[in-house]
Amino acid sequence: MDGRPEMTDVKKILKQMSDELSKPIESYIEDELPANLIEAARQYPYAGGKRMRPAMVIAACRAVGGDGRKAVPLAVAIEYIHNFTLIHDDLMDGDEKRRGMTTSHVKYGMPTAVLAGDALFAKAFQIIADLDADGETVRDVLRVVSQSVWDLARGQQMDINNENGTEVTMDEYIETIRLKTSVLFAAGAAGGAMIGGASKEVVDAVHGYAMNLGVAFQMYDDILGIVGDPAVTGKSSGNDIRKGKSTVIVCHALKNIADRADLLVFRDILGKTDATDAEIDEVRSILRRACSLDYAIETAEDYINKAVDCLDALEPSKDKDFMIALAEYTMTRTL
Amino acid sequence: MDGRPEMTDVKKILKQMSDELSKPIESYIEDELPANLIEAARQYPYAGGKRMRPAMVIAACRAVGGDGRKAVPLAVAIEYIHNFTLIHDDLMDGDEKRRGMTTSHVKYGMPTAVLAGDALFAKAFQIIADLDADGETVRDVLRVVSQSVWDLARGQQMDINNENGTEVTMDEYIETIRLKTSVLFAAGAAGGAMIGGASKEVVDAVHGYAMNLGVAFQMYDDILGIVGDPAVTGKSSGNDIRKGKSTVIVCHALKNIADRADLLVFRDILGKTDATDAEIDEVRSILRRACSLDYAIETAEDYINKAVDCLDALEPSKDKDFMIALAEYTMTRTL
Repeated sequence: MDGRPEMTDVKKILKQMSDELSKPIESYIEDELPANLIEAARQYPYAGGKRMRPAMVIAACRAVGGDGRKAVPLAVAIEYIHNFTLIHDDLMDGDEKRRGMTTSHVKYGMPTAVLAGDALFAKAFQIIADLDADGETVRDVLRVVSQSVWDLARGQQMDINNENGTEVTMDEYIETIRLKTSVLFAAGAAGGAMIGGASKEVVDAVHGYAMNLGVAFQMYDDILGIVGDPAVTGKSSGNDIRKGKSTVIVCHALKNIADRADLLVFRDILGKTDATDAEIDEVRSILRRACSLDYAIETAEDYINKAVDCLDALEPSKDKDFMIALAEYTMTRTL
Repeated sequence: MDGRPEMTDVKKILKQMSDELSKPIESYIEDELPANLIEAARQYPYAGGKRMRPAMVIAACRAVGGDGRKAVPLAVAIEYIHNFTLIHDDLMDGDEKRRGMTTSHVKYGMPTAVLAGDALFAKAFQIIADLDADGETVRDVLRVVSQSVWDLARGQQMDINNENGTEVTMDEYIETIRLKTSVLFAAGAAGGAMIGGASKEVVDAVHGYAMNLGVAFQMYDDILGIVGDPAVTGKSSGNDIRKGKSTVIVCHALKNIADRADLLVFRDILGKTDATDAEIDEVRSILRRACSLDYAIETAEDYINKAVDCLDALEPSKDKDFMIALAEYTMTRTL
């Protein structure tokens, strides 16, 4: 026993943090006009969810010895930014459902969905301007958060460019998910540490932790996108194959499918938008034979280990233990 | 002679400032990946234009006694925010051309246009984080700029809600254009004054100047939208009538058209998407008979006077004179 929370405890702590964050998350968007935009801006952030990103902001602030309550506004800002990107991503992808909820552009129309995303983005920066911290800390938080949003846009565009069966290298894949996913985790964690009064060295360590965790998080999402249970993940499994999306699994498979017939079938079905469920199953069998799923899981675990190693720079604490457990939890989310 | 620049000089000074701003405007978006997003993010801001908003940032900084060079990055940030909203507005409105240029979503596709807007928005805040000013000033600039973007989204949604012949009161119309247009002028001018080291009282005065100027600017745009020369404005005249857009002219007309037959015709054509040019001409005649165009011009002039009055809080200077002349120029732009 090393005193770290068990997986069931991580879930419990996350659930509790998510519940506690509901009130602040629902307090920053006031009743203003026009009502339809305000309703659309509230839809995604008020819908709940695991809220791992804001939880990490608060955990990082506490783990460096800060007062977690001071990090709550930044946690809300990071959650708003995450939801702004979800609204715009759903529009770009033409998705009609997100975890059972009708997506913004379907419910409110394209113009209002674009504006709801923009409004959440703006609100996040209004919140950062009012942080309970000195001006130079606000500037540092602003720098890392605004950089992350610039990178998120680049990552999302790379992701779109990588669809339709474009073959990318493993390095390109890693760069895409660092930009698409890791940077916002990292900006939140680093910002939380800044508010907690951490030194630059410790801020960098926390940033590194979250960057690595984010890579593992997205890899694991990509694994679930191929073999996950739709009832649990809320996404129809196999669609990443139909979209021809480049993932760590696909990158590995293209290099490691030993059987020539398998490779031909794989290339044929990858990016085939109307692939049948039987064809998707065939792809899954090929990926298993090539050990591509195992490889993806091992690679993700390597990133989790790197994330945990970054935390060596922090003094031992309950919150550091939670951050370590949170990294490990990333890989058990929905299996 | 009161030493103020003549109209031709204002145009010359604006042109010179716009030219001088080209280099900084083209220096903040570096060659990164993916190339298609970077190209799309550059398209609008690099295309030139009058650049009144960034010019006002620099003029305000100088007029309060500051070093205008320190305000250049904020001027760029304000221009990026303006262009981010143009890209998203063109998408929402389904416009295919902007001053002869193919719009972003037509040229690059909807997803890249959404992301190019988001990226410019993010870049603006990255620039603000790196302003050559102390942390508390950065916080103040961040507060007024992020508030303005929140308001811009509200104003744009109100504008959409007010289409299709929705009848709005004059107060609602003024509120819409304050949010849709004035707030960004005001955030830029106030931010420039902050960087220039102005007192809160002077910052508020400059903010008030730009709010009033913005209202006149948008009113004048709405006037041009009905009677402007398309060859000069670059917009097809009469489309605001076809969209049934509420403007100061429409608000006035609905209350002041004396002839019952005129009122019936006016209501019939307002919001008629396939109205012929002859019908639009008929509307113009009705508006002239009701003196609605005169009323709109007078109202806009009142706002210009209010704007100029706000500047009483500033010491006399060449830059204050330019700001006064700029306000007056607003009403002669393309007539």
